[in-house]
Amino acid sequence: MEIEIATIGGYEEVGRQMTAVRAGDDVVIFDMGLNLSQVLIHDNVETEKMHSLDLIDMGAIPDDRVMSDLEGDVQAIVPTHGHLDHIGAISKLAHRYDAPIVAAPFTIELTKQQVEDETKFSGSFDNDFVKMEAGETMSIGDSGNVEMEFVHVTHSIIDAINPVLHTPEGAIVYGLDKRMDHSPVLEDPIDMERFREIGREGNGVLCYIEDCTNAGRKGRTPSESHARNHLEDTIRSIEDYDGGIVATTFSSHVSRVSSIVEFAKDIGRQPVLLGRSMEKYSGTAERLGFVDFPDDVGMYGHRKSVDRTFKRIMKEGKENFLPVVTGHQGEPRAMLTRMGRGETPYEIEDGDKVIFSARVIPEPTNEGQRYQSERLLRMQGARIYDEIHVSGHLREEGHYQMIDALQPQHIIPAHQDLEGFSPYVDLAESQGYQMGRDLHVTRNGNMIQLVE
Amino acid sequence: MEIEIATIGGYEEVGRQMTAVRAGDDVVIFDMGLNLSQVLIHDNVETEKMHSLDLIDMGAIPDDRVMSDLEGDVQAIVPTHGHLDHIGAISKLAHRYDAPIVAAPFTIELTKQQVEDETKFSGSFDNDFVKMEAGETMSIGDSGNVEMEFVHVTHSIIDAINPVLHTPEGAIVYGLDKRMDHSPVLEDPIDMERFREIGREGNGVLCYIEDCTNAGRKGRTPSESHARNHLEDTIRSIEDYDGGIVATTFSSHVSRVSSIVEFAKDIGRQPVLLGRSMEKYSGTAERLGFVDFPDDVGMYGHRKSVDRTFKRIMKEGKENFLPVVTGHQGEPRAMLTRMGRGETPYEIEDGDKVIFSARVIPEPTNEGQRYQSERLLRMQGARIYDEIHVSGHLREEGHYQMIDALQPQHIIPAHQDLEGFSPYVDLAESQGYQMGRDLHVTRNGNMIQLVE
Amino acid sequence: MEIEIATIGGYEEVGRQMTAVRAGDDVVIFDMGLNLSQVLIHDNVETEKMHSLDLIDMGAIPDDRVMSDLEGDVQAIVPTHGHLDHIGAISKLAHRYDAPIVAAPFTIELTKQQVEDETKFSGSFDNDFVKMEAGETMSIGDSGNVEMEFVHVTHSIIDAINPVLHTPEGAIVYGLDKRMDHSPVLEDPIDMERFREIGREGNGVLCYIEDCTNAGRKGRTPSESHARNHLEDTIRSIEDYDGGIVATTFSSHVSRVSSIVEFAKDIGRQPVLLGRSMEKYSGTAERLGFVDFPDDVGMYGHRKSVDRTFKRIMKEGKENFLPVVTGHQGEPRAMLTRMGRGETPYEIEDGDKVIFSARVIPEPTNEGQRYQSERLLRMQGARIYDEIHVSGHLREEGHYQMIDALQPQHIIPAHQDLEGFSPYVDLAESQGYQMGRDLHVTRNGNMIQLVE
Amino acid sequence: MEIEIATIGGYEEVGRQMTAVRAGDDVVIFDMGLNLSQVLIHDNVETEKMHSLDLIDMGAIPDDRVMSDLEGDVQAIVPTHGHLDHIGAISKLAHRYDAPIVAAPFTIELTKQQVEDETKFSGSFDNDFVKMEAGETMSIGDSGNVEMEFVHVTHSIIDAINPVLHTPEGAIVYGLDKRMDHSPVLEDPIDMERFREIGREGNGVLCYIEDCTNAGRKGRTPSESHARNHLEDTIRSIEDYDGGIVATTFSSHVSRVSSIVEFAKDIGRQPVLLGRSMEKYSGTAERLGFVDFPDDVGMYGHRKSVDRTFKRIMKEGKENFLPVVTGHQGEPRAMLTRMGRGETPYEIEDGDKVIFSARVIPEPTNEGQRYQSERLLRMQGARIYDEIHVSGHLREEGHYQMIDALQPQHIIPAHQDLEGFSPYVDLAESQGYQMGRDLHVTRNGNMIQLVE
Repeated sequence: MEIEIATIGGYEEVGRQMTAVRAGDDVVIFDMGLNLSQVLIHDNVETEKMHSLDLIDMGAIPDDRVMSDLEGDVQAIVPTHGHLDHIGAISKLAHRYDAPIVAAPFTIELTKQQVEDETKFSGSFDNDFVKMEAGETMSIGDSGNVEMEFVHVTHSIIDAINPVLHTPEGAIVYGLDKRMDHSPVLEDPIDMERFREIGREGNGVLCYIEDCTNAGRKGRTPSESHARNHLEDTIRSIEDYDGGIVATTFSSHVSRVSSIVEFAKDIGRQPVLLGRSMEKYSGTAERLGFVDFPDDVGMYGHRKSVDRTFKRIMKEGKENFLPVVTGHQGEPRAMLTRMGRGETPYEIEDGDKVIFSARVIPEPTNEGQRYQSERLLRMQGARIYDEIHVSGHLREEGHYQMIDALQPQHIIPAHQDLEGFSPYVDLAESQGYQMGRDLHVTRNGNMIQLVE
Repeated sequence: MEIEIATIGGYEEVGRQMTAVRAGDDVVIFDMGLNLSQVLIHDNVETEKMHSLDLIDMGAIPDDRVMSDLEGDVQAIVPTHGHLDHIGAISKLAHRYDAPIVAAPFTIELTKQQVEDETKFSGSFDNDFVKMEAGETMSIGDSGNVEMEFVHVTHSIIDAINPVLHTPEGAIVYGLDKRMDHSPVLEDPIDMERFREIGREGNGVLCYIEDCTNAGRKGRTPSESHARNHLEDTIRSIEDYDGGIVATTFSSHVSRVSSIVEFAKDIGRQPVLLGRSMEKYSGTAERLGFVDFPDDVGMYGHRKSVDRTFKRIMKEGKENFLPVVTGHQGEPRAMLTRMGRGETPYEIEDGDKVIFSARVIPEPTNEGQRYQSERLLRMQGARIYDEIHVSGHLREEGHYQMIDALQPQHIIPAHQDLEGFSPYVDLAESQGYQMGRDLHVTRNGNMIQLVE
Repeated sequence: MEIEIATIGGYEEVGRQMTAVRAGDDVVIFDMGLNLSQVLIHDNVETEKMHSLDLIDMGAIPDDRVMSDLEGDVQAIVPTHGHLDHIGAISKLAHRYDAPIVAAPFTIELTKQQVEDETKFSGSFDNDFVKMEAGETMSIGDSGNVEMEFVHVTHSIIDAINPVLHTPEGAIVYGLDKRMDHSPVLEDPIDMERFREIGREGNGVLCYIEDCTNAGRKGRTPSESHARNHLEDTIRSIEDYDGGIVATTFSSHVSRVSSIVEFAKDIGRQPVLLGRSMEKYSGTAERLGFVDFPDDVGMYGHRKSVDRTFKRIMKEGKENFLPVVTGHQGEPRAMLTRMGRGETPYEIEDGDKVIFSARVIPEPTNEGQRYQSERLLRMQGARIYDEIHVSGHLREEGHYQMIDALQPQHIIPAHQDLEGFSPYVDLAESQGYQMGRDLHVTRNGNMIQLVE
Repeated sequence: MEIEIATIGGYEEVGRQMTAVRAGDDVVIFDMGLNLSQVLIHDNVETEKMHSLDLIDMGAIPDDRVMSDLEGDVQAIVPTHGHLDHIGAISKLAHRYDAPIVAAPFTIELTKQQVEDETKFSGSFDNDFVKMEAGETMSIGDSGNVEMEFVHVTHSIIDAINPVLHTPEGAIVYGLDKRMDHSPVLEDPIDMERFREIGREGNGVLCYIEDCTNAGRKGRTPSESHARNHLEDTIRSIEDYDGGIVATTFSSHVSRVSSIVEFAKDIGRQPVLLGRSMEKYSGTAERLGFVDFPDDVGMYGHRKSVDRTFKRIMKEGKENFLPVVTGHQGEPRAMLTRMGRGETPYEIEDGDKVIFSARVIPEPTNEGQRYQSERLLRMQGARIYDEIHVSGHLREEGHYQMIDALQPQHIIPAHQDLEGFSPYVDLAESQGYQMGRDLHVTRNGNMIQLVE
């Protein structure tokens, strides 16, 4: 059976991920992401109103024109988890393919919401949504020979999976995005046992497509429970403070939000989740049963209800609450930045604590904005606790262990540019792979034929 | 009562700490440290054989000649904990003062060993050693008005204390060195309650001398239990590995060593502590009852017994052991570096794990040596896990909380150079102190008169 | 004669410089600057409309309330050169003092323009302006004993001087801001001979107040002719390019602008200076005879004439012009950034060259904005040449030579925060000065009495 | 005619360069270099006594075993310039090939000396040496169709060339190593005119192999005359100093050495070149007529004559001399480091100047050693001037201009690892090349068939 892989997007950047795998006549697309930084550099761009070709030219969404060179029918579009760089282009590109969106429950729900937001002007979207849980499989196409399985992985968003395409030639493991977490929060450990089985069963692994984001960092990415331990240590240390405590984190990081909520309760404060995206992710996770927040946790998305909540907090006493807000990257219009500017009813006073449970994404724009945000907060008297965080991506030793578990015949580094691939290539070569032979360093828009 | 403070050493560097406080006719000296880097820059220097004046000229030990300007009798020499930059000059300088060494039990023991090592050529040392536990007090001098108390603190070595001199004018709190740890390993949390009491009782705190090492780092230093959690996460993740695992850390950091020992046992390996300094610190701690290692933990200090142990490990199988060795800074002659060079019987093979439970002390010499060490280890096939560590020094928010607890009338930043004092000065000024009034930024060899 | 120095502003930051020296009954104020970054952090702040007290609270202008503690009459307000951090608060503060603004011709002119811009709403300014050239002196007050001299220095703006107050107790040299340039562009070398004389004559130098901006950088700051050489090398290397070449630099840096103009001519292009501030500084310099631009150099300040010029360039061919524009720090609304966004009639095409004859001022906000600006320019196809620049401030060896030349009795580090003072203090101490004795490390708002 | 390129060494590192080009039946080898850092990491390694296979295993010299896959006869071994990473393996590998060493005069001479040093133990070397000047050509093999030309380029060593193999399929340009210098010192500008001709004539350029060392640095590498200008500015600024002035630079960088010599004379000091490698490179250059040093310039290589010279300098007065010594990277046994340790008769005193006309090669080992060296020098009172240097390698805009001049059909990035190739790949892709099609990103030991 012919096996071909189209590396469509996310091979020259982090963002706009898209990869298609053809097994015989059947094609599966993994991820359709958005590179938000290519949008934000322009003033006044509204992606909802833009045509996909313009977004392709901007480098914001994958250039899927290479798909016309791939002979076969797209049977499924498979976002691996709910981050925008994996689902953000579905609203723009999926309608070109007569195939359902197949994803884990939380990812399906986020994709639906994203599509609704983005297509309210065009209304052009009519792909089906098919829910599939980690551990489950589905048949792909009519050959009866190809099956797709979801393996549970751990990342900085819940319900992430790695899809595996079982073909007669061996398995194709699409490894984006994950951390090897044996003691995560809110969910099961990564299913390494299944990965090891896949590495040994049948023809083994034909090809492994891997997320290289942190390949250049030594050691292993710590567990989410390590960030949780850090959060607890931090929040406990300010338990006696009788003024305002505010926290910010990635709104999509429900495990982290739930830890903050829990420790807020532990020190006798009512947690309130504020902002549209906070409400969206945490609300969705709770509705789907991934998390069970205490009854008195407030979630407020609309500007008016947020303002009302802030007024209530000021009236009832800041010492009774712990607002969890957006703004961890210092985004100029996010809630925390506006709080620093004194634009909300919540008054930051001398000694108030602000907890950044996030790392600044290392890029000068973010660093500049975050610096401004912290300066504003400090001008109000805030005390800053930052980098209470662990990454969602494997580092060098995680990659070493994944290669060891899967023993793939071919490897395709992904989710980075060439510079980012480089430490991964060094690792793979030290394990016997050879660039140009079984280690495929590639760019956006290429086709790799593994079996002819 | 006149109160005067002589800032003798460690006010222009980290290293060679020494401060004297005069209360009326009585003087207490806090710390007498060695700045090892001023020694190591020279080839072939042996401090044991050197005269104290030469070591002073080298900048290696405190220049205590300013003591002659201090009218009063030295009643005690008080090392706060067992690190060399606090006890390393006692063998060279203490004999000039007719006063006992007063310290906590672990510190006393380490000081004794240090003095024995250093004075075997001269034999000149005859100060008494007086043991005093955290929580205890002793009377200073004959006035009946001055008392010294030890308050338990948490640092990167066990049994650290902050001495407090109670005088009729208020307390003088000597704050070197500490982290604010509410869940340490092997010992009690920092005694913040006592600090808060001292801040409120009597005349409050007249002066606070503070360790500024990490004052410029945002947030708080995490607890030792956070490093322990990180270690556990790391060691558990390689539980299934059937080859060699080696760890290195500060040999004086007995809490850390004990965590490594414990997790080694958890994954079914016998821990062995190798190297003279490993044996010294851990052996001493065990003898004094600070730690209770499992019976089968080996400790071997002499070169011959280390080699014999390595041979035994190679024979019985590396998968059964977890050697804990020196060399975390890549020191050229340390055990781990020699292992990287293939100079020991222990053979590092492809896939073997090396755990650095330490941070490179940020200075180009260390960074160069550590880089070389890692390169050598990787050339043997080693996989590196590094920076599994937390600092022993307060960061910005710890300092904020200490000032809040003590409410001192005067503050003297210490344990840094001027650049290192600068973030602390910013913090103190934001809390209402003023440089030149009640915030004393000073250099080595100065005298500050607080009460005339 | 009593000598007292008030360190009013710029002793905790770079920006809002202000120092007052009292000699007997007479006071001279050196500099009254604006810290622009404290203004820009806020949205929508217009300094022209703000009261000085609000600007003081914002940390934007010097808090001159300490002046009321200085007994004596202000005889002169002396801005040393035309940069905003030295003249920017004159419009807000000078009217409180019954004293003329005394400055070198270029500085006078820029100060007048600044005052006119800022006081058009209030109209409150009525201090006299007194022009004084480098090398000249004037009598201060009625004692007949105090004289002020201007010594010519070299900086990143022309006509900079160091004022020297000659008193019976010795000279007070106010050393802000300078580089030691022996082969500058458009003006004479720094007058080191005069400094050496001042160091030897009469009672020598009582006090030296020094600009520490680059004290922590090794070696010496190269001459402006070094930047000029770099510019020439760069522009010559693209001599054959037949598309657009654009340059940006500090608009106040007339020497640099004149070098760009000259090399543009050399490669057969017409230089055009675009933007309000380009026109202001270069126009003023030309009117005062500091520079003689070729006849065909265009200068256009108003938006409309800039747009008209861009249209003409596009019509007559970009290969015939070299526009010099604002935007070297990536300021969001500056000309070059707008060119990157495609908001001007000048179209940047593939291969066009953009020369940044400036260094990014190292602060995350600037770095973020500059990064964005370069990204936008590159998206249009621009080729970037950056850091074609030398600093205007002395480095370590320049400071060493100044101390050697002046042999001052007292030194006061300025124009930095405490961290920035720290390498200067190390240098001064290595030359025998001692902090707290004759080396005065201070903060904003302090008074130092040198002679009682 | 078949054209094949073997990328043998220097495609995964900087060091051990070696590339072979086959045109029909004829093969030319470009460079045979040594990666010194792979040797120095080991204690006590003497390359002279080592077998080539051991050096290959150490990663020190190119693994030329791939040459057996290349069908054809080696007709020439062509080192492009005299740096060790281009000639250092000739003594170990060239004897395997029945072909002469063809190089420019200075390179030939240095290669001969290197071979003599290295083969004194084995005596195995008997390849011929053939001198060829830039601008000359020679016929390769018997086909009558292949010619080799040397094009003059500018680098950090004199007499560097880029060899061009003219084949019926187009030219193969081997672009290692160069800077685009239009105003170099001691030699002619880079011959860009010839490169542009080669790009246009016949079949144009089939393939360009390029030195990517600085591809990731913005802008252009300045001319050597820029470093010379910096040197002059620096040395002039200390013209009046009446103590010791010492300079260090790359001993192979004869242009730089000659500038130092010249400016030493200008300020009335006698230059003396000290150390074996200083004598070797400068002596050779003078003998070959590349430089004409003043008659009184001393050159002393042997330890004894160096010591004698230092003694003479101390006797006749340091103010009359300017020693130029080795040790710019802080190498522990180099002259300058030994001077810092006080191990030579030259006494560094307070205020003496040390000029580093070099940049620290950015690697932690070098940085650590250089830091130690500067610390030692400063402990003697030395004043440090550093980074008076320009690189010998093209930056981004030089690469842009080379591609523009040559318009090659294929490009092979070299002289870096994959991370180092990455910015070059971005540049080439922005110019229309495509990885995997006409842009060949490769590793050591690969074969690229350009024409079948």
